[in-house]
Amino acid sequence: MRNAVIAKPIAVRNIARPDAAAVKALGDYGVATVHEAQGRTGLLAAYMRPIYPRASLSGAAVTVLVPPGDNWMIHVAVELCQAGDVLVVAPSSPCSDGYFGDLLATSLRARGVMGLIIDAGVRDVATLTDMQFPVWSKAIWAQGTVKASLGAVNVPIICAGQRIEPGDAVVADDDGVVVVARAEAAAVAEAAAKRCANEEDKRKRLASGELGLDLYKMREQLKALGLEYR
Amino acid sequence: MRNAVIAKPIAVRNIARPDAAAVKALGDYGVATVHEAQGRTGLLAAYMRPIYPRASLSGAAVTVLVPPGDNWMIHVAVELCQAGDVLVVAPSSPCSDGYFGDLLATSLRARGVMGLIIDAGVRDVATLTDMQFPVWSKAIWAQGTVKASLGAVNVPIICAGQRIEPGDAVVADDDGVVVVARAEAAAVAEAAAKRCANEEDKRKRLASGELGLDLYKMREQLKALGLEYR
Amino acid sequence: MRNAVIAKPIAVRNIARPDAAAVKALGDYGVATVHEAQGRTGLLAAYMRPIYPRASLSGAAVTVLVPPGDNWMIHVAVELCQAGDVLVVAPSSPCSDGYFGDLLATSLRARGVMGLIIDAGVRDVATLTDMQFPVWSKAIWAQGTVKASLGAVNVPIICAGQRIEPGDAVVADDDGVVVVARAEAAAVAEAAAKRCANEEDKRKRLASGELGLDLYKMREQLKALGLEYR
Amino acid sequence: MRNAVIAKPIAVRNIARPDAAAVKALGDYGVATVHEAQGRTGLLAAYMRPIYPRASLSGAAVTVLVPPGDNWMIHVAVELCQAGDVLVVAPSSPCSDGYFGDLLATSLRARGVMGLIIDAGVRDVATLTDMQFPVWSKAIWAQGTVKASLGAVNVPIICAGQRIEPGDAVVADDDGVVVVARAEAAAVAEAAAKRCANEEDKRKRLASGELGLDLYKMREQLKALGLEYR
Amino acid sequence: MRNAVIAKPIAVRNIARPDAAAVKALGDYGVATVHEAQGRTGLLAAYMRPIYPRASLSGAAVTVLVPPGDNWMIHVAVELCQAGDVLVVAPSSPCSDGYFGDLLATSLRARGVMGLIIDAGVRDVATLTDMQFPVWSKAIWAQGTVKASLGAVNVPIICAGQRIEPGDAVVADDDGVVVVARAEAAAVAEAAAKRCANEEDKRKRLASGELGLDLYKMREQLKALGLEYR
Amino acid sequence: MRNAVIAKPIAVRNIARPDAAAVKALGDYGVATVHEAQGRTGLLAAYMRPIYPRASLSGAAVTVLVPPGDNWMIHVAVELCQAGDVLVVAPSSPCSDGYFGDLLATSLRARGVMGLIIDAGVRDVATLTDMQFPVWSKAIWAQGTVKASLGAVNVPIICAGQRIEPGDAVVADDDGVVVVARAEAAAVAEAAAKRCANEEDKRKRLASGELGLDLYKMREQLKALGLEYR
Repeated sequence: MRNAVIAKPIAVRNIARPDAAAVKALGDYGVATVHEAQGRTGLLAAYMRPIYPRASLSGAAVTVLVPPGDNWMIHVAVELCQAGDVLVVAPSSPCSDGYFGDLLATSLRARGVMGLIIDAGVRDVATLTDMQFPVWSKAIWAQGTVKASLGAVNVPIICAGQRIEPGDAVVADDDGVVVVARAEAAAVAEAAAKRCANEEDKRKRLASGELGLDLYKMREQLKALGLEYR
Repeated sequence: MRNAVIAKPIAVRNIARPDAAAVKALGDYGVATVHEAQGRTGLLAAYMRPIYPRASLSGAAVTVLVPPGDNWMIHVAVELCQAGDVLVVAPSSPCSDGYFGDLLATSLRARGVMGLIIDAGVRDVATLTDMQFPVWSKAIWAQGTVKASLGAVNVPIICAGQRIEPGDAVVADDDGVVVVARAEAAAVAEAAAKRCANEEDKRKRLASGELGLDLYKMREQLKALGLEYR
Repeated sequence: MRNAVIAKPIAVRNIARPDAAAVKALGDYGVATVHEAQGRTGLLAAYMRPIYPRASLSGAAVTVLVPPGDNWMIHVAVELCQAGDVLVVAPSSPCSDGYFGDLLATSLRARGVMGLIIDAGVRDVATLTDMQFPVWSKAIWAQGTVKASLGAVNVPIICAGQRIEPGDAVVADDDGVVVVARAEAAAVAEAAAKRCANEEDKRKRLASGELGLDLYKMREQLKALGLEYR
Repeated sequence: MRNAVIAKPIAVRNIARPDAAAVKALGDYGVATVHEAQGRTGLLAAYMRPIYPRASLSGAAVTVLVPPGDNWMIHVAVELCQAGDVLVVAPSSPCSDGYFGDLLATSLRARGVMGLIIDAGVRDVATLTDMQFPVWSKAIWAQGTVKASLGAVNVPIICAGQRIEPGDAVVADDDGVVVVARAEAAAVAEAAAKRCANEEDKRKRLASGELGLDLYKMREQLKALGLEYR
Repeated sequence: MRNAVIAKPIAVRNIARPDAAAVKALGDYGVATVHEAQGRTGLLAAYMRPIYPRASLSGAAVTVLVPPGDNWMIHVAVELCQAGDVLVVAPSSPCSDGYFGDLLATSLRARGVMGLIIDAGVRDVATLTDMQFPVWSKAIWAQGTVKASLGAVNVPIICAGQRIEPGDAVVADDDGVVVVARAEAAAVAEAAAKRCANEEDKRKRLASGELGLDLYKMREQLKALGLEYR
Repeated sequence: MRNAVIAKPIAVRNIARPDAAAVKALGDYGVATVHEAQGRTGLLAAYMRPIYPRASLSGAAVTVLVPPGDNWMIHVAVELCQAGDVLVVAPSSPCSDGYFGDLLATSLRARGVMGLIIDAGVRDVATLTDMQFPVWSKAIWAQGTVKASLGAVNVPIICAGQRIEPGDAVVADDDGVVVVARAEAAAVAEAAAKRCANEEDKRKRLASGELGLDLYKMREQLKALGLEYR
């Protein structure tokens, strides 16, 4: 019978990874800043939420395409992960099953993996929280999965509305998850740095009571467009 | 590897079916009337919609439990269907994939099956409409499925929020889908008949301008509860 | 026990209604045009869909606030409707039950009511379609309701995200449902007329191949904002 | 081009605010009690959730109507806020973008604003939590917004299913968000006080093992309606 | 008028309960393990979430069928609960109203009830958290309910997609809620024990860097199905 | 102020288009067959539905990225369309507004465009149906849009969960929408042809009563996996 969700089930062993310093910096700036710094692109859907507050990570994407209700390819992917990677999993059609639990997390942690982004469900979240193994998921649900059909590892995937290629930089925190193309990681980190420096001054002025209307010189434009005060 | 969504994958060959005359009568009364006649119970979820207007059916349920994204057990179920049956399919976890298309419909029609109720997706709906093969589903979607894991046929299932046992009577039309326990089919048909007779008179009186407030003698109770006219 | 969803269950007998000619005209212009003509306001939520294609109506709102799963107040409202009215029903908390069916439609038709807008479910839709009694609803579902608790008739309600006052003009067609404040019905009809006249000329020019970019003189502004052609 | 979501973009400078003592008292009673005390009305939709546990506030509403994906009017609104106010934001059509972050919170805090109610998304929630700046929102999402089109400040809006007028009292806690009409704030606070006093005695009796069936004298009514014990 | 959601409103006083030691053991193993141990069945829908992190319980189900927006039957159910029970509530049609708050929790706690599973809304969650009274619900919402119509207590219900009979064992934690048939509680507890013992060894091997591919001997099967490494 | 949803708003004039004969053939085979023929990939989300039954098209994608609630870039795109193209529109964050109506359809038809795929809303659907201008959309809704901010034309976009590049082949019918990479259009058309030929024979055999279990030789494998007949 047909046992694969795609024509050619493959697992790519070697992928290029982004500059480690850039990945680290992107993580420090956080999701909102990185998203803005690259022109308001790359953000995964709003339903991707961390399993515990204050979770955050950045790393290189190892991508996994899985069939609905089948987590076999995640086991294949573990072997292909190295320290500093982030596992990024997307089902071939929408699914909320609990593809991932504490055993897989134990295995990933042994390899130095930073965490998991999954457009599906996760389980054993109390244990994952104790381990401080961060996960962003569509659902928290114990529903078990089978190991019967193939998918692919390290191919481009669409995860929660964004295309992610193996080796892209992934940043995640309380505000969601953003992907940065591998080749642009350093440039985006630099743009984020500028944005942050710029924000610090604004924060002080706003805290002192200066209005955004004045700080950003908006009054004239608002008037020109027809805003009327009463 | 684990290839079944449940501990014991079984297919039950022989099931008891409801009284054919009762099933026919239930179909004539329609979903809303049958639902009321059995005490406002048995209705499947509101998201179960027919693939074309004016579709309707009644029949005996042949039940199928399928894994997400895997339609293999439907092929097993076809053999166990007979004329007058309705195939009722539920996935073991939520799924909108297109489990069913025109080839399966051709096969079911050859056996005299009345139609399909599926808490998942269906495809080839233009052809199904041409065939006038009625389907109530959660989604219309071409997404293909694999044939890799087992489920069960003719076991009790939960389909769109209702428990359905093999051999229960199923009624479906533009208002949705309702299930009637096999043993109660005749009694519910009788209750539905009374309800219908009763409604005919009401319809005439309402059409002539008589108010429900008077017909149902509601005014006093409304006043007693505190309704105030202004 | 407590039997009302609101503090003071009332039914207001006499309401002011909008100018009949204006209501008629609004219906002729249709939802999209009326919505634009009043400054892109007044549109009910996108989930409000007609039960059959090409349904359309306009009329004066008779508003009904109902408890979840309880359609008693609709019976109270029928008596307060007159020819040209539209019944507008909202539950006090979200509900998809089938509050309304062919008997209530028969009763409303006998009074000359144009149709129903309900932020909940409706049933008997095959019969309602035969009657050409138009309904816009959140769901089609046979689920029955009780008659146990009070609500209110002809008070301001929030229906599918818009506030509707008794006597407001309501327009509905394939594009959805829009409400126009009673006092503004004539002015909005006039604005809609202008918009329509204006559109006719545009349609001809676009049909002949003229581009919107030129017709609306957009090229310069796009360039000024930084659009770059490659 | 057309740059406003509504016909007349206005910002109203001066609004009446509710009695400060009443607002404070409403906050002390909390959402569930206030909602009950005013006849089970005024509650915003269930999807409005606080960004951290134990968040709570009460204040006077400064209302903002914003276009989808455009937060410009929030900057206009900041200037019109004063100490004790709550910013209440609704988009002109559904949107989950991150309209609001830590810079705007810094600005609002500088003016003594209590917090934010937004029928859309919010970002920088880790920082907002550190600041203990409470927000109730439909989503947490980093998605950026533009500053290109106008809306309105201090006009009546529909926010998460409730109409809110500028100057209404708003109360929010872990149970959601409720609005109280400005003119009724004192009366509702008084009704809430009575309800609370009443509840304290009930709580003690229930804690000691007395049954609600007896405390509320329900047994006879249940029997009269036909409840049958087996 | 019609005041019941079902034909025969009944409350069953005496139900059989599962073996207490088995129930305790099931709670110790947790939802994911119990769900797997009984063949990946019995899990309630993913939207059932605890009101605070680290909530957990196990107990015998006292089931309640309630009308939408009407919590009267919960008061009837309280009397029928005993120490070690779990109240399991399902509405007759979907509803998110706040059926349950701190007063009912006080009453249940006085009887030794472990917690609440409700396919609807709950309120007073800050107080419930202070009480450490665990609740799994579809929503947190203050919306009040009436006491006007009957339902049933201790009849089989469908709650969040699973059939639950009175006296079934219910287990809930951060991963969701699972039901175990009363008669199978001991056997499932035993199967869970084996599974846990088995997992401990796996966890150690995975933590030491051994791959699941080797531990579970997957490589050959993956190759046979056509997985290709690049 | 910031007026673009992306860093570099561009419009690409010249794109490569797929082989016209292949595009035509893909349209003849239909969505389900094409989706299967390319390894069950490329299908847009299930919520993308045609505005009238029996709508179908195939063509070359002209892609448009639009801000939420802003349809300006669609006007830019019209000029870049040629006969046989399909306009494919995705918002930069989720939106259901009515970006497109009969005037834009008139303009596109004048250029020979086949239809519209839009991951947002559409309006004037009665007129579009009269014109037989096919549209697949996420919503039907009259909500108006502004023309204030820039996006991009003929850049790769994510539309309803699939990446679409300018010049890809798009096929749509009652079963949904599928995209085929430009370079693979001919090969996929060929694979689809084979699949169709193969299906014709199967259909006849199934119609004559032969079982899928026998036709696909499934019995042995089912037995091997442990299916048990009772």
